[in-house]
Amino acid sequence: MTTATRSEFDQGIALSPAGPGRYAGELGEGWQIGGGVNGGLLLAVAGHALSLEHPEHPDPVSISGYYLSASVPGPVEVRTETVRRGRSLSTGTASLHQDGEERLRVLATYGDLDAQAGEVRTSAVPFEMPPPEECIGVEHAPKQLIEQAALLERFDLRLDPATVGWAVGAPSGNGCIQGWFRLADGREPDPLQLLLVADALPPVTFDLGLPGWAPTIELTVHLRARPAAGWLRVRHATRNLAGGYFEEDAEVWDSTGRLVAQSRQLARAPRG
Amino acid sequence: MTTATRSEFDQGIALSPAGPGRYAGELGEGWQIGGGVNGGLLLAVAGHALSLEHPEHPDPVSISGYYLSASVPGPVEVRTETVRRGRSLSTGTASLHQDGEERLRVLATYGDLDAQAGEVRTSAVPFEMPPPEECIGVEHAPKQLIEQAALLERFDLRLDPATVGWAVGAPSGNGCIQGWFRLADGREPDPLQLLLVADALPPVTFDLGLPGWAPTIELTVHLRARPAAGWLRVRHATRNLAGGYFEEDAEVWDSTGRLVAQSRQLARAPRG
Repeated sequence: MTTATRSEFDQGIALSPAGPGRYAGELGEGWQIGGGVNGGLLLAVAGHALSLEHPEHPDPVSISGYYLSASVPGPVEVRTETVRRGRSLSTGTASLHQDGEERLRVLATYGDLDAQAGEVRTSAVPFEMPPPEECIGVEHAPKQLIEQAALLERFDLRLDPATVGWAVGAPSGNGCIQGWFRLADGREPDPLQLLLVADALPPVTFDLGLPGWAPTIELTVHLRARPAAGWLRVRHATRNLAGGYFEEDAEVWDSTGRLVAQSRQLARAPRG
Repeated sequence: MTTATRSEFDQGIALSPAGPGRYAGELGEGWQIGGGVNGGLLLAVAGHALSLEHPEHPDPVSISGYYLSASVPGPVEVRTETVRRGRSLSTGTASLHQDGEERLRVLATYGDLDAQAGEVRTSAVPFEMPPPEECIGVEHAPKQLIEQAALLERFDLRLDPATVGWAVGAPSGNGCIQGWFRLADGREPDPLQLLLVADALPPVTFDLGLPGWAPTIELTVHLRARPAAGWLRVRHATRNLAGGYFEEDAEVWDSTGRLVAQSRQLARAPRG
């Protein structure tokens, strides 16, 4: 694959070997949001390194990222450590460094999602929303949001009109934002992309009437199936904003109606 | 405090310094379940070590445990590493070893829950259930459950009659178990105890008609407030049993009606 044909996402998470358990990458300007680099993209970069470490277990099954300091565009080094290599699962850590400072520490268990093609007895059902062509594209987002969020140009994100009142000064107060997601350049979803998607929507605090960015403390994603090609539907919700923190639960469904990822993060509430 | 007056839980998580970043403990026979040591107790042991490492940040705010191999009663060593020491939060790792084998790797961010006494705008409401005296005590649990779960004797656990049909061969199929929790010896709740509580109820898969133990792959707990004295109410639920895994979300409310902990785990579904 040449760089010219690589998708923006594959360029964004590209890594070169730089010694045992070391990988060199470059955080692109195009993945910025609110002055830092999007936390989902960072998790996908670290997750990519761990995927290269265990080729027999290429897919994150559960991955937890603890965010330490704000990442900036530019070179990045990922250092990995294998904790345990098992028959069906392997566990490892990854740390992301810039200019001698650690940005993100990751702990994760990997496997092969194709080996998880077992019985499905889920009681969860995909949430309802209007089709993508009746949802609100990013081109309608407030200008100050777009200016602070270069990464929105990488996305074809269509938000459910029922959950975008905050964009016109009328947040619902429910603490829920949902929409359709795909990458703008048509790159189809895969497990690493789901790490990005888990942190791709605007913070649910927008819908509580709290503008401003919400730094992630911790984000854990469970990958529950390999996603099919096509649109993903994503819902973010919170139930407990308290003491300066809130949780944000995300669920990601693929085009076949399969629940492919579940995530939860703890974030600092905007001071706004 | 002398050992004689120590609670069972404080004895269970007791640690002695064993060099820089090293602590020695003992996993008691009384915390066993299904042949291993309860995963919540293990998380509390590792969490205790990290609490000792950062006295200015004594409370877990977010803690993620990745379970590597089954723990057994006997000596245990906890090794800690400080990842970042910040003004309001510190991040560290802990690993739990027995006989040269790693049992559990933990990544966590600590702070001071008393400093989090800010605004509460939660939309979550405590779930309803009958009072403890109308709920089902462990003394009514099936004998084979008690025999495999010595730790149940440490608990005063009263399950909501609406969610214990599985104990008499009539699981509801909803994937939900809830009840009142306190320690049998009256030791009042604190943040470390909430790590135990997050994994204290029978697996929700019992309520799906799947008996058998469900090994935890990963468990993350968010501590949202310091719990008040008295009964805790705990609910475990799952929505997505698929491909041999399921998630188990827990919420823990204190006696003042505050949501004090939220957790999610990924576990292997029982083969049953």
